[in-house]
Parts: sequence; C-alpha cells; structure tokens
Amino acid sequence: MVYINENFNKLTPSYLFATVAEKRAAYEAANPQAKVISLGIGDVTQPLCPAVIQAMQKAVQEMGQPETFQGYGPYQGYDFLIEAILANDYAPRGVQLGKDEIFVSDGSKSDSGNIGDLFSPTAVVAVSDPVYPVYIDANLLAGRTVRRLPCSEADGFCPAPPHWHADIICLCSPNNPTGAVFSKQQLAAWVAYAQQEKAVILYDAAYKAFITNPALPQSIYEIPGAETCAIEFCSFSKTAGFTGTRCAWAVVPKALQAQQADGASVSLNELWYRRQSTKFNGAPYIVQRGAVAIYTPEGQKQVQETIAYYLQNAKIIREALLSLGFECTGGENSPYIWLKTPSGQTSWQFFDLLLNELNIVGTPGSGFGEQGEGYFRLTAFASRQATEEAAQRFRAYFGR
Amino acid sequence: MVYINENFNKLTPSYLFATVAEKRAAYEAANPQAKVISLGIGDVTQPLCPAVIQAMQKAVQEMGQPETFQGYGPYQGYDFLIEAILANDYAPRGVQLGKDEIFVSDGSKSDSGNIGDLFSPTAVVAVSDPVYPVYIDANLLAGRTVRRLPCSEADGFCPAPPHWHADIICLCSPNNPTGAVFSKQQLAAWVAYAQQEKAVILYDAAYKAFITNPALPQSIYEIPGAETCAIEFCSFSKTAGFTGTRCAWAVVPKALQAQQADGASVSLNELWYRRQSTKFNGAPYIVQRGAVAIYTPEGQKQVQETIAYYLQNAKIIREALLSLGFECTGGENSPYIWLKTPSGQTSWQFFDLLLNELNIVGTPGSGFGEQGEGYFRLTAFASRQATEEAAQRFRAYFGR
Repeated sequence: MVYINENFNKLTPSYLFATVAEKRAAYEAANPQAKVISLGIGDVTQPLCPAVIQAMQKAVQEMGQPETFQGYGPYQGYDFLIEAILANDYAPRGVQLGKDEIFVSDGSKSDSGNIGDLFSPTAVVAVSDPVYPVYIDANLLAGRTVRRLPCSEADGFCPAPPHWHADIICLCSPNNPTGAVFSKQQLAAWVAYAQQEKAVILYDAAYKAFITNPALPQSIYEIPGAETCAIEFCSFSKTAGFTGTRCAWAVVPKALQAQQADGASVSLNELWYRRQSTKFNGAPYIVQRGAVAIYTPEGQKQVQETIAYYLQNAKIIREALLSLGFECTGGENSPYIWLKTPSGQTSWQFFDLLLNELNIVGTPGSGFGEQGEGYFRLTAFASRQATEEAAQRFRAYFGR
Repeated sequence: MVYINENFNKLTPSYLFATVAEKRAAYEAANPQAKVISLGIGDVTQPLCPAVIQAMQKAVQEMGQPETFQGYGPYQGYDFLIEAILANDYAPRGVQLGKDEIFVSDGSKSDSGNIGDLFSPTAVVAVSDPVYPVYIDANLLAGRTVRRLPCSEADGFCPAPPHWHADIICLCSPNNPTGAVFSKQQLAAWVAYAQQEKAVILYDAAYKAFITNPALPQSIYEIPGAETCAIEFCSFSKTAGFTGTRCAWAVVPKALQAQQADGASVSLNELWYRRQSTKFNGAPYIVQRGAVAIYTPEGQKQVQETIAYYLQNAKIIREALLSLGFECTGGENSPYIWLKTPSGQTSWQFFDLLLNELNIVGTPGSGFGEQGEGYFRLTAFASRQATEEAAQRFRAYFGR
C-alpha cells in the first residue's frame, strides 16, 4: 500500500468546534423548547453590504457577456484589488509595499496552512498558548516541532519573545481567542527577535478592522524592519463578512530572505509566487470585484457600520461581564471576549453551565491550549437582539 | 535564517506558459499590426451560460439579506451541489458514491497539488510523458521521486502500466496535452495494476465533458474495483467555463485505504477530510450555487451547446490539419489537438514558425516532457471566427 503522511497521527482526534457543535445538538435534541444563543463559533451574521452586493451583481453580469467574460485571472490577483489594498490598508499607515508583494487568495486559513510549503520540515515553530488550533495542526502535518509561548493575564495575553530559538513564529493580533492586541513596542520586540534569530514571523491580522485605538498597529510593517522578517495575512472574512465568500491576501516582502543549507539566500517572495502558480489558480473574479468594493466611499461607510455593530455587541457583553465581577480581556479592538471562569471551574464545566443553565453556547478556553484552561471565549458576531438577550441571561443568573 | 524547502530548486526555472506569453508579447511589440490568434493557453473564451448567471445573481442577492446570508459553509461543500454531482455525474454511469465521498473545492489545480499532503515524501509517483507540468512540480516540491511513463503514437498516447512499482499514478483522460482518451479496457488494466501494487491512482477527469463516444469511460469508477485504489478530480472549469469562477470536486472513496509504517490501515477519506478542514475553508456559496445550476434542464442544454461549440472548433482545426497531411491525435472527445511537427522541426522551431509566419500561438510539445519533442498542442477554446481564420492561415501556408 502507498504510505501515508504519518504526521496525521499527531493531530488531536477530536476537533474543538465539532465537539462544541455535538454538545449543542445533543442539548437541543433533549430540550427542544430551549432558545439557544450561540456566542461560540467565530462566524459573522450580518449580510454583505450593499456596495459589495452591487459590485458582485455587476461582475456576475460581466461573466455572462463575451466581451467582459473573465477566464483564468492573474496569479497574484487582479491589479484593481491589489492597488486598492496598497492604497487603503498600507499607504495611510505609512507602509510602502509593491504590487508584486501582495498575493490575493481564497482565505487566510488556506494561506496559513499552505505557507508551510516554503519551509523545511526541520523549522521550529513558536505559537502562542492559547492559540487558534489551525496554526498548530498545519505545522504538525508537516512534521515540524511546535513550541508554545505561554500567555497569561500577567502579560495581558501578549507573549514576549522567548529565550529560546524559533525559526517561525505565529502571531495573531488582535488575537483569537483572547482579543489581546500587540502595541507597537511589543511588536517591535518581536521584529528585533526575528531579525536577531533570522526567523520569520507569520503575522495574522484577520481582525485588524476591529482596532479602534489609533495608537495600536494594524500591520506589522508599521514596525521598521518587519519587511525583512515577516509575512502578513489579511482577510476580508471579518472585515467585510466574507466568511462564505472567501477572499484574503498574503504579503510576502521582497526583502524577506531565507537560507538554503549551502548558505545561499533565497527570496520567499519568489518561492510563494512559484508555490501559488503551481498549486492554486486564484480567487474568483466575481469575489475580487466584491472585495474591492469595500474601498469605495460607500463601501467604507457600510463595512464600518457593520464593524461598529459587532463592536457594540462586544461592549454589551464585556460591560455585562465586568459588572458581574468577571475578569476579561478583549472586546475592545476585537470581536472576542476572553473571560476567566468563576469559582475555579474548568473551561468545559463552565461550557456546560452556560449551555444548561443559560442556554448560551461559547467556546471553552482549554480547547485553545493548556493556558486556556480556566478561561472561556465569547464572540460579538451574533445579532444585537441575541447579544442583548445573552447579556440579560448573564445578569439574571450571575447577578443573584 | 529559517531554512527553506530546498525542493524548490528542483523545479524548472522557466515556466512553460510564461515563456510562451513572453515570446508572444515580444512579437506583438515588434509587429503591432499583426493579428495574433491564440490557440495556446487552455482557457475558455465563451461566457458563463444564462442558467449559471441567473443562479449566481440570486445567490448574490441572498448574501445581502440577513435571513439568507451564508457564512462559513459545510467543510465538504453544500449538500445541494454534492447531491446534484452524485445524481448527474455518477448515478447515470452506474457509479454509486456516498455524499461523504465528494469534496467540493476551488479547483482541480489546488486538489492535484494539495492531495500530496496525504502521502509520505517517499512515495514514488508515475506520470505520463508528455504531461501537464503541474503534476510533476507539486510532487517535486514534496521531495518525491517522479518517474515518467513515456507515451507515443504507437500506444495512441495512452500509457500502459509499467513493469516497475509506483505508489501513486497520475492519469489524465481526456488527456492534456495529447487529447487521448483511455478506453475501459485500458483503464481496467490500470486499476488492476494499482490493486496489485497497492498503489493509488490520481485520476484527472477535467475534460470528461468533451467525451462524445458513449463507449468511453467518463469516470474511473466505471471500472469495478476503482473505488479501492483511485481518487478522482473533476472540475467545472472546462465543463462550464469556470476557469475564472473556480469550482471543482475530489472523490475520495471510503474503500480507499493506505498504510502506515506499522502496517495499520488508514482511510484516505478521513485524512482528506482532516486536511481540508484544517487548511481550507470551502468554495464560495455564490460559486457553488452557480455550479449546481448546470444540472438544471436549461443549464444542461446551455453547457452542452458551449461544449459542442468548442468541439466544432476542434473538428475545424483537426480536419484542416489532416487535409494538409499533418499527423495528429485529439480533437475528438477532447478540446486539445496534438500534432506532429512537419519536416522534423523541433517543437520550439514550429512555435516560432507559426508565430512569425502565421501569427498563431500554440504550445510546444517539448514543454510537456521529452516525449513531447517534435509535437505541438493547439486548443479548441478560441472563438469560432478566430478558429476558422487560423484554419485558413494553415491552409494558405501549408497548402502550397
């Protein structure tokens, strides 16, 4: 028989969100009258905004006419989208990047996983603990050693560079699941570490649209020198509600070099171009036209309204929790609230309590790593009505 | 510095289609009056059909309303599409597959490359020669040994199982670039080989919609036993013009097992499910609604008309070539015509002659492998007008 990649055996047998879904389904089957509110899965609920809808309608029409039909697109994405990304996401933050440093894709989940094709299996990867499980799984599948950077309340859930060597560092800011956001100084320390260790930072900025504090960095390239040591992943999923529409981009700067065993220097930008042109065929034309529409004045106004809607949800949840004596981070500059479970309960005990007593689904922090034990994640993506109802249930139960 | 995947050094420095594009661009820059006709790139030219356009318009509207908005889709794709694939592509051919054996994706190019995640780097891969370069490149990137199965006129460009052992076999039928189509007997020989060698066939059926001869198999699963030894890749790209819209599926049967080093048996269906749920987030809802629309009566009628249009182009090219004394395969049951260059010219010599003397762009066969030297590929995807003009230019030049 053909031999499989045995690294699959290293993955945890049970997938966190599948287990949450099963427990919810079992509860609902046993309690059909219950009105379960989900603040669990990190999926958006608000529809795509009108500017995006109109742009995609126009693009669909174009695909039906011979003069405007689009076949295979450019490997790195259409210029109209790349130029808009540079002009809106980077230039105003003082970041200068070239068109050939942006690679449009179908999602940061794909990019985070596939970027591993560029690196040797021997690269040592540092990830936060707690962390979104996908960063770990993709690297375990490649046979890499993954080391944790434990985070805690003491460091505001923002890990500092370790005393040990890593080749690749996965950072996510604003963070999933903790909602913590790196300051410029904290990011600068990571850039210094990466330059000193000749390592590469994989910087996931999927939630950057939720940052309201102008002092907080949105792109790692706001830190001088980051272009020599960091790849950045950005996504339209949470910025514009594209979880079911799929569009994102990776930044691979030309200044980013890695090494061969013989000491020769290699451009990661060229390697990513080769990988994508070999194993990918672009995001759909219709979707790229939808994505670029968020950069028009109407588009900007509309996506900001939706972001503000979710941020207000986050505020409602956060304020309810704080008023009840919970300790939490996130919920400001982030759609996730990370709270400490009361009375020393484990994460799953608190999950069961919330599901059974409040009919609320959240995500147990222990599912994100050892440092997540005793913590719990709630999301701000539900409807306003569901969010206010959830806050009321918290007050009714914990306010006694 | 972080160490790269050194297998990138194994890829050919020049990418075939990029070189073709550069030579065309250089010619057009020097000869701005020339009316260059491209029968080179395998990209469709006819727009998406009305049934698909209408379905996507409706889906775009749904994405703009809270009640019908779709976020993250099911990992394997929406049931409405999977069920239509089973009912239309498999059941009528006598093939019974389960819903959980179909995995919707963004393209066969992605699937062909990413399927490698399931296999050990030590697996030996057999590919045809000539062959679409991507099968080779993706395996070289993974560090695998790739061995060629030389094809020739003598075997009608349909390779037979070799006398040596392979773990993975990449087959494409109808073939890119030769247009050759396996008969049931030929495929049965491959299934027997794979079962005997305990190997896995990766069967690329991207061009199956062009098969008009009902005796020819469209799916490898029409061969009894194939479900134990084959993965099949199918795509909406050439069937429905989705090259810029991106939708495809992989079939990974539950009966397909592979082995661990300790002898334990592993389900490739479970591994692919895990790989896709870890490193992919689905094809867009809008695109899946567009894809399923080809299975309505109007959709079927419309895509068949477009396929017939391209097949008529292929007939025009093929008949012109045959009447001029060229030897060629393909062009029947396939959108590619594979012709022998005249007078012992090399593939690139013939490329230059066609470009300079006839202002026609094709693809030199040598770009697909050693066995492609002395051959040339033309595609049937251009407009009818361009195709007839090209045929006329052939007659004018070679008919003298």
